[in-house]
Amino acid sequence: MNYLMIFYIIGWILVVEAALMVPSGIVAIIYGESCGWVFAVTIALCLIIGFPLIRRQPENKVFYIREGSVTVALSWIIMSIMGALPFVLSGTIPHPVDALFETVSGFTTTGSSILASVEELPRCILFWRSFTHWIGGMGVLVFLLCLLPLAGSGYHMNLMRAESPGPTVSKLVPKVRATAKMLYGLYIFLSISQLVLLLIGQMPLFDALCVTFGTAGTGGFGIKNDSMGSYTIYQQAVTTIFMILFGVNFNVYFLLYMKKPKEAFRCEEARWYLGIIGVSTVIITLFIRDSFENIALAFHHAAFQVGTIITTTGFATVDFNLWHALPKTVLVLLMLIGSCAGSTGGGIKVSRIVILFKSVLGELRQTLHPSIVRKISFEGHVVERSTVKSVLVFLAAYAFIFAASTLIVSADNYDLTTNFTAVAATLNNIGPGLEMVGPIGNFGSFSVLSKLVFIFDMLAGRLEIFPLLLLLQRETWRRF
Amino acid sequence: MNYLMIFYIIGWILVVEAALMVPSGIVAIIYGESCGWVFAVTIALCLIIGFPLIRRQPENKVFYIREGSVTVALSWIIMSIMGALPFVLSGTIPHPVDALFETVSGFTTTGSSILASVEELPRCILFWRSFTHWIGGMGVLVFLLCLLPLAGSGYHMNLMRAESPGPTVSKLVPKVRATAKMLYGLYIFLSISQLVLLLIGQMPLFDALCVTFGTAGTGGFGIKNDSMGSYTIYQQAVTTIFMILFGVNFNVYFLLYMKKPKEAFRCEEARWYLGIIGVSTVIITLFIRDSFENIALAFHHAAFQVGTIITTTGFATVDFNLWHALPKTVLVLLMLIGSCAGSTGGGIKVSRIVILFKSVLGELRQTLHPSIVRKISFEGHVVERSTVKSVLVFLAAYAFIFAASTLIVSADNYDLTTNFTAVAATLNNIGPGLEMVGPIGNFGSFSVLSKLVFIFDMLAGRLEIFPLLLLLQRETWRRF
Repeated sequence: MNYLMIFYIIGWILVVEAALMVPSGIVAIIYGESCGWVFAVTIALCLIIGFPLIRRQPENKVFYIREGSVTVALSWIIMSIMGALPFVLSGTIPHPVDALFETVSGFTTTGSSILASVEELPRCILFWRSFTHWIGGMGVLVFLLCLLPLAGSGYHMNLMRAESPGPTVSKLVPKVRATAKMLYGLYIFLSISQLVLLLIGQMPLFDALCVTFGTAGTGGFGIKNDSMGSYTIYQQAVTTIFMILFGVNFNVYFLLYMKKPKEAFRCEEARWYLGIIGVSTVIITLFIRDSFENIALAFHHAAFQVGTIITTTGFATVDFNLWHALPKTVLVLLMLIGSCAGSTGGGIKVSRIVILFKSVLGELRQTLHPSIVRKISFEGHVVERSTVKSVLVFLAAYAFIFAASTLIVSADNYDLTTNFTAVAATLNNIGPGLEMVGPIGNFGSFSVLSKLVFIFDMLAGRLEIFPLLLLLQRETWRRF
Repeated sequence: MNYLMIFYIIGWILVVEAALMVPSGIVAIIYGESCGWVFAVTIALCLIIGFPLIRRQPENKVFYIREGSVTVALSWIIMSIMGALPFVLSGTIPHPVDALFETVSGFTTTGSSILASVEELPRCILFWRSFTHWIGGMGVLVFLLCLLPLAGSGYHMNLMRAESPGPTVSKLVPKVRATAKMLYGLYIFLSISQLVLLLIGQMPLFDALCVTFGTAGTGGFGIKNDSMGSYTIYQQAVTTIFMILFGVNFNVYFLLYMKKPKEAFRCEEARWYLGIIGVSTVIITLFIRDSFENIALAFHHAAFQVGTIITTTGFATVDFNLWHALPKTVLVLLMLIGSCAGSTGGGIKVSRIVILFKSVLGELRQTLHPSIVRKISFEGHVVERSTVKSVLVFLAAYAFIFAASTLIVSADNYDLTTNFTAVAATLNNIGPGLEMVGPIGNFGSFSVLSKLVFIFDMLAGRLEIFPLLLLLQRETWRRF
């Protein structure tokens, strides 16, 4: 294990995080909030630890996927610990585990909260809370790759592979660094588009910024106690559209940018994704029609809720906890599916579900014709056996973590739907679940142990399980 | 598709089913119940349809796994339809879908019931209801294999493979027919042992027979409204032990019978199975201790509930619906795991779970050492890639059916825990779930559509999904 290199990158992470806290400090100054000092202290701390680590680039450049996974997992943990400091120091979330929960929920773009009420928080703290979504959405290591002129090719790919969601990272362009820059470019472009549209809809600048951060990262922290409930229909509709857009595989935007619209529209995952959204919205609209003045309004809220759940954002405009069981079940299933690979959203990912579905059909065909070997294809390519296997193993690992988490959390003796959907909401980085953790509920009353489990699940969900499991393997830490 | 051969075997199934209804008729005569005529009518009907079909053995002996799967699936459906007739004709369960639900629940050894109260049913009907468990436990086609001198080797293996639970059927002895006889011999021996022990404990003969049928098939139909609650501690304890014994891989008994105790005790699946039972029982005992007079009684009821759930039997001595959330969650997880492959129990099966678990660990190790290919082993043998893949695909198919069923059932607008555990209880052939379908509840109030979904799930669970899915594939029915 190349520890020196890992420390070097973590040093950079701390320096970058310090830089990313500056805007929150500025917000404090603008609004004249006295608690702004907590950002100054945290920034100073990040730099004091970070600078010595980045003083000299290590000579040993060996950097395998193992190092990549460990670096990513450790970076996220350290980033979250430092990111939690402003909450603790300002006294807004005094308990360290609660503050860590909130920060991890932010960076992993989950959006689950332990706070019962957010409206009385200082603006600078609210800004930082929402900004963590925007940072976590595209990934802080991907961001680092845009900046760092690291020599050696191993790093980039192995870091990016460990941080990016989805079964495979297709190299968009030969140079990973160029890919990283391209992704951030598209991310910033889409974010600004949403911001402008919200401002046109007369949303105050501060609100528009925070909503955009939550949407772009598919995070879901709101700055109102009713999440998005009190915004106008126009503002909600803009958010619906952008939530869905940020859940699309970024390959599609890249292809559009490269002026290859034909290839972009042929993207199989995006078509399944939009198809699932369409069908779910129609079904839910039919079931909730009677609760709204007219069918258009029912459709509006159905689309918002479908968008927020499948992209794992977690905003809400209504309390869907009160709905009929069928639309609620649709939402639970969408929670599990999640968004596209290569987007900022979480969940199992549409591409994995499609590959699994095709594997089952393939197995049936195999039984009918045992002699013919037919491979399954996705996005116009034959899916390699190793990809199918790793997708299936991912599902198994996912199921084991799900089961173990539900078991531990049940010790708090809340009802089974609460426990089940709380784990689903954190492991898939969604935010709200049902019952006690529904759109108007929160995670505050769980025990410290359960909160630690949720923190693990949120990180496991964002980093797609394996980097985090590797940290727990003794073998990982042996020198060999 | 060799239709003639399929019809021939189905003909035999009907004749065998007629023979298996005779004991119920005798019960009617003994207790002087006038409704005994329904068995005479059903037996006559089975023979009228069956005899013409078996008049001549077809000359075309081609019989692949495809034919095997279709035959098994169709046999189970037809057997269930005929088996439901006594309930409808006697007026005890007038609605045909309800009667089919009860019969499928019997044959698939599920034990879910639509009846709110069973104690007022005629004895002959109760006997038939419990006897379906015993028939379904070992499988009626395996029984047929003991009797039928079918020429050609393809049938036996392909029928048995489709009907027996578990990822692989290891041929115990070279001749499949000899294996079938051996399995039934062990099944009968264990059943008689339990019967004798229950009679020693002064349980009435009729009760002892019905309890034994329910235990041996891991079914769970009770003949009392409180299931096993009113029996003595001794009678409950005997049932606990035999439930656990019937959930063990029958390979173990076969090896013991062949005087190979060393090999028998080395059975990895059985050891995991007993380990899971032990750990779960201890955990549950600790959580329910305060609800009972002493810890021994708490242990007794914990062991009974763990045994009944992991073996997917479904008897109950207490209403575990009222327990703390953690023991309830343990029971839900045990529902999903199920018993050993090659036993009479249902669920995903311990061997599949172990293979999945090892695959996840293997994938982690692969990430650490990408160059070293290490295979996973189970029961002392290397697990073939194709086995791992089919286990994983099974899990995926299982998840899809689970999701689709929960969605359809949720249209009835019951709470999510009811829907989720009702699907788990039927797909895993357990019997009771939680909330509305808990140990003292029943499935009677679901809609006809939901009941049809449950019927499909019970059959899919017992036949391990693929034979039933093949029936739904258009390609299966093409001649090629």
